[in-house]
Amino acid sequence: MESFVLRGSYIWSESPRELVLKPRAYGVCDENGCCAGVFDALPERYAALPLRDLGEALIVPGYSDLHTHAAQYRDIGLGMDMTLIEWLDGLTYPEEARFAEADFAREVYGRFAAELRTGFTTRAAIFASAHREGTEILMELLEQTGLHTLVGKVNMDRSAPDYIRERDAASALADTERWLRETARFQNTKPILTPRFVPSCTPELLTGLGRLAEQRGLPVQSHLDETPEEVAWVRELCPDSESYAAVYDAAELLGPQTVMAHCIYMTDAECALMKERSAFIAHCPSSNANVRSGIAPIRKYLDMGLNIGLGTDISGGSSLDMADAVRDALSASRLLWRLGEEHWPHLHAREAFYLATAGGGAYFGKVGKFAPGYAFDAVAVDDGAWSGGDETLEVRFHKMIYRARSANVVSKYVNGRRLF
Amino acid sequence: MESFVLRGSYIWSESPRELVLKPRAYGVCDENGCCAGVFDALPERYAALPLRDLGEALIVPGYSDLHTHAAQYRDIGLGMDMTLIEWLDGLTYPEEARFAEADFAREVYGRFAAELRTGFTTRAAIFASAHREGTEILMELLEQTGLHTLVGKVNMDRSAPDYIRERDAASALADTERWLRETARFQNTKPILTPRFVPSCTPELLTGLGRLAEQRGLPVQSHLDETPEEVAWVRELCPDSESYAAVYDAAELLGPQTVMAHCIYMTDAECALMKERSAFIAHCPSSNANVRSGIAPIRKYLDMGLNIGLGTDISGGSSLDMADAVRDALSASRLLWRLGEEHWPHLHAREAFYLATAGGGAYFGKVGKFAPGYAFDAVAVDDGAWSGGDETLEVRFHKMIYRARSANVVSKYVNGRRLF
Repeated sequence: MESFVLRGSYIWSESPRELVLKPRAYGVCDENGCCAGVFDALPERYAALPLRDLGEALIVPGYSDLHTHAAQYRDIGLGMDMTLIEWLDGLTYPEEARFAEADFAREVYGRFAAELRTGFTTRAAIFASAHREGTEILMELLEQTGLHTLVGKVNMDRSAPDYIRERDAASALADTERWLRETARFQNTKPILTPRFVPSCTPELLTGLGRLAEQRGLPVQSHLDETPEEVAWVRELCPDSESYAAVYDAAELLGPQTVMAHCIYMTDAECALMKERSAFIAHCPSSNANVRSGIAPIRKYLDMGLNIGLGTDISGGSSLDMADAVRDALSASRLLWRLGEEHWPHLHAREAFYLATAGGGAYFGKVGKFAPGYAFDAVAVDDGAWSGGDETLEVRFHKMIYRARSANVVSKYVNGRRLF
Repeated sequence: MESFVLRGSYIWSESPRELVLKPRAYGVCDENGCCAGVFDALPERYAALPLRDLGEALIVPGYSDLHTHAAQYRDIGLGMDMTLIEWLDGLTYPEEARFAEADFAREVYGRFAAELRTGFTTRAAIFASAHREGTEILMELLEQTGLHTLVGKVNMDRSAPDYIRERDAASALADTERWLRETARFQNTKPILTPRFVPSCTPELLTGLGRLAEQRGLPVQSHLDETPEEVAWVRELCPDSESYAAVYDAAELLGPQTVMAHCIYMTDAECALMKERSAFIAHCPSSNANVRSGIAPIRKYLDMGLNIGLGTDISGGSSLDMADAVRDALSASRLLWRLGEEHWPHLHAREAFYLATAGGGAYFGKVGKFAPGYAFDAVAVDDGAWSGGDETLEVRFHKMIYRARSANVVSKYVNGRRLF
């Protein structure tokens, strides 16, 4: 890869409260696709590199979507007035079952991958369905986008109808190992172990997946503490466990490569456990409102030093646009400030931006800021429709947070490779 | 005006729970710009009328935006991390003060009117600023759009800095009467009396405006019960009043032509008063989250039979797109179901759609449904990016609610006149 310079107005987060603003600066991408620095004036040593000038555009780190379901793509906006059981049995499971057909999978996943390619997302952790072949098709299609993603074949061997459930733990694990072998060829699309959630996995399956994660050094994604009803169900299923999180931990599924979606109702002990394991939280505010789950106390988790990013979680969430996730996180946090029992301060715009970039990016390694050595994941935003004149870059940042959508992303780089 | 036929797939609300779905039907607009009916097959008597076929497009009633601030258009996304006092004194009042300059007003209001013209909105009730001339400029620009709007010169004669406040009640009323005379020429852009809210209006001003409303048969817009802090402030300012709503009522400002923004913290007595007066509520969920106001119990108000519509309320709200207001109303209502103290059912998609169309439309007369005699306000939506194949019109309705944005509106009629 050839090094290059990208000029524009850079904005990124060094920490939840620390925003870096560099008007009309020079970002340098090295031959490994990593950031060599962002400079107010171009250093002499880079003067010979090819330079692309994006003019007045804003340049922000690509956003990391830490939780979404590709197999629910067609269902965005549907089933929102159903109960969880109606939603699973009447809508989601029948839809996911269709991914047994390769043609269907190719068509729907193709549209999912095409939409994901546009917009702010550069990295994503994605649930497919329980089908090995369909999941491979999704990986193939994502590989073509240039995005960097983790994709999971879903595991579930209980509490679901036969037509969507895996037969038992042994066959689920064998199928998963075969899937791992058959998808080893992808460069930017990697497997992630994906037990659906505790209620749909037997202890044998969870333990087997924990062993596999350890042997192969694989990442893990699942759901945790989404609704009070689900927490009560897990307590019933696992009466000897100290908590929902402890069930995953007992199977050795909690670690620095683990991301758990939702985490709304974590006890203090679960927070401590997640922190000790350095596991990640995928905060999914759109889904948490649509599904009536509640509001995760993200500002409190930030103050506790937990690892957190954002997720779109379609089709519980109703938008694949991570810019919506940022706005929804802000709204939810403000409503929690007013309606919640505890009185933590609400999230500020720069903190929500941090979650979408550096916060979630850390799940993928050195990702999510324009610091030397970090992957050069850059998204260029044209804010000319609402900003201009003598506005400061900080004003433009705030307007971008509230107004920008996928359609305003005019160029995108992942690990130094230009997608468009 | 010539009668015509518009073909497409019609969707409208007869009542909060009753959705009418007519695939590929024929809507007839009569020579007064009113709906003559929507028919599965075109009746012989209309066979000679010009017909426009919108193919697969959805056709829904135009949405009514019952509350928004044109003078805050440039500030969308700004000041969200400020307190209310910081927001007013540091951002909103200085910005509104600039509308004393005609050139500034023309430029910003021009962009506001241009954005409002696109998208779902066909009718709107709008706050300008306290400036008579600036407000007239806004009315002029809105008149050119073809939208039907009510526009208010803001009245405020206390509790605000001198540079934005009117001198006293007498001069405020005289200025308002002059503004009414000077803007009588507009066809589709009508004046609405606009006391900012109780804290910024002396009793003399409120009473004077109430008299004016009665004498001239004018509509009225203001704010009510937005935050607990504001409610406490009004109690302090008006210790002899039974409630915040009662202050407006004592000035004869509450009637069937009144719309009050927010109404989050209404007591039972205030609900009864609003109902008795047939006044309207403008529910503004985006603003209520951004400003940390809380969540209005809209489903409860619907069950009580109150008149309700939706408002975008920029720049407390962060989007002028009424499709966002519908989604935000759904999210807020679901979160209230989980977090609130009372346990009313949450709003369903068809109810939120009702609020945006027939609910808010009723404020403007026979507006918001495709029933005979109603204004032919129609918005055509291209949902081809996410719908298609063998989906039912009901499925397409739900997907439209969650996915459609201004950009998907491909044609618009107001009172039978085609805007684009």
